[in-house]
Amino acid sequence: MTKRLGDLRPGPRFADKADYEAALEKRQRAMLSLQQAYWHAKRRGVIVFEGPDAAGKGGAIRRMTETLDPRGVHVWPIGAPTPEEQGRHYLYRFWQRLPTPGMLAIFDRSWYGRVLVERVDRLCPPKAWKRAFGEIVEFERMLVDDGVRVAKVFLHITPEVQLERFAERLGDPTKRWKLTQADIDAHRKGGDYRRAADDMLARTSWKGAPWKAIHADSKWRARIDALDHALAVLGKGIDMRPPPIDPKLHKAALRMLGRRA
Amino acid sequence: MTKRLGDLRPGPRFADKADYEAALEKRQRAMLSLQQAYWHAKRRGVIVFEGPDAAGKGGAIRRMTETLDPRGVHVWPIGAPTPEEQGRHYLYRFWQRLPTPGMLAIFDRSWYGRVLVERVDRLCPPKAWKRAFGEIVEFERMLVDDGVRVAKVFLHITPEVQLERFAERLGDPTKRWKLTQADIDAHRKGGDYRRAADDMLARTSWKGAPWKAIHADSKWRARIDALDHALAVLGKGIDMRPPPIDPKLHKAALRMLGRRA
Repeated sequence: MTKRLGDLRPGPRFADKADYEAALEKRQRAMLSLQQAYWHAKRRGVIVFEGPDAAGKGGAIRRMTETLDPRGVHVWPIGAPTPEEQGRHYLYRFWQRLPTPGMLAIFDRSWYGRVLVERVDRLCPPKAWKRAFGEIVEFERMLVDDGVRVAKVFLHITPEVQLERFAERLGDPTKRWKLTQADIDAHRKGGDYRRAADDMLARTSWKGAPWKAIHADSKWRARIDALDHALAVLGKGIDMRPPPIDPKLHKAALRMLGRRA
Repeated sequence: MTKRLGDLRPGPRFADKADYEAALEKRQRAMLSLQQAYWHAKRRGVIVFEGPDAAGKGGAIRRMTETLDPRGVHVWPIGAPTPEEQGRHYLYRFWQRLPTPGMLAIFDRSWYGRVLVERVDRLCPPKAWKRAFGEIVEFERMLVDDGVRVAKVFLHITPEVQLERFAERLGDPTKRWKLTQADIDAHRKGGDYRRAADDMLARTSWKGAPWKAIHADSKWRARIDALDHALAVLGKGIDMRPPPIDPKLHKAALRMLGRRA
């Protein structure tokens, strides 16, 4: 049974920055091994990030990708659908962003917009977002049945911390632009948003693609927990060893290098 | 007038690793400012990497992107076209990978495959790759006229250094898989490949999208030079200051935070 966001408790704090950095480095190494294993076995992995503005999705994604080979991972920031996309099924624009063999795709917001912002801001009729819970699970089931691993992370912050982060942005001329009217409006509707997120977590967490709701008032803890969830779901049972070289190719290479096999 | 690859000379070496790292950090900071400026102004930038196997394209790309916001940059590794793609125009698959407003796209190999590997391996008739020089310049001109900046980097390594790097890969069980039969075949045809690259540099370097051919026997030097070229082409005349906040939004934000404007 999924916990309600209001019942989430902050995870243990790190003793200091060095403690956090050691934890981070360990997981970043594991993430790189995972990426390489996916590359070799032509596997596909999807990591979904959801959460309100200033929850730290961007920072968590950056820590997840910064040591990876950028050729093997795509991050897709998902905004409001364009007018052209609004004329199509809401899942349409995600199909073309799914990973190709060997690749990871990370979504900074996702198809869950249908049951979050579109519900809260009344961008689609209630019938449409109610129907979406089942549709999304079926969509993910198709992916999982086709061999794609799907990890989903929801970053939850308390309204107080969200306001603190907005204030911080406002006070920093290089970060001010991050604050938009949409953030202010969304903060006012925070309660509606949390109710929608609670429904989403309860109705779309399933065995093949479980949600991990993370208390993200501590950015450090949230980044580590997000990495742990991605590693657990995408890494389960995966052989991390690099593939052996084809003996024929090995011989040919040694000949080229002027050495004996 | 473009130099022939055989006439390229290695750039100055760095005194030591700290010297290289200081140079790198400075450029990575500039690259991040550039990315933010592109994001704010909804500009689009393209960086093309070409060069033989083991020239260090992957490492140079990683240094270029590792401090950027991964949501604003996509790296596209370009392999042989799929059978479906072969049935279409060779430029087709690049159109859909061009950056959207605010984004950077980095190509690890590109449309130049037409006049490099496809020419050398006779994957298309001579008439087709001869026609491609002009087609490619026209394609890039359309992009540049549409406001896209295009920087192109060719990493050149000597055959000796290429063999050294192959030997290193072969000796490292975690890197062996990087060596393929295609690498061995390509090394044998190194002379043909360099001639094709010389033609390409001479015929497709133009004012709007100049090539930078870099002697890449030193990986450190090559990474710095590649960053310098990208920064010069994409950064020329760009206002790097963060945009001011809308005064109305500023007021609304201060009200929300319970402060006076």
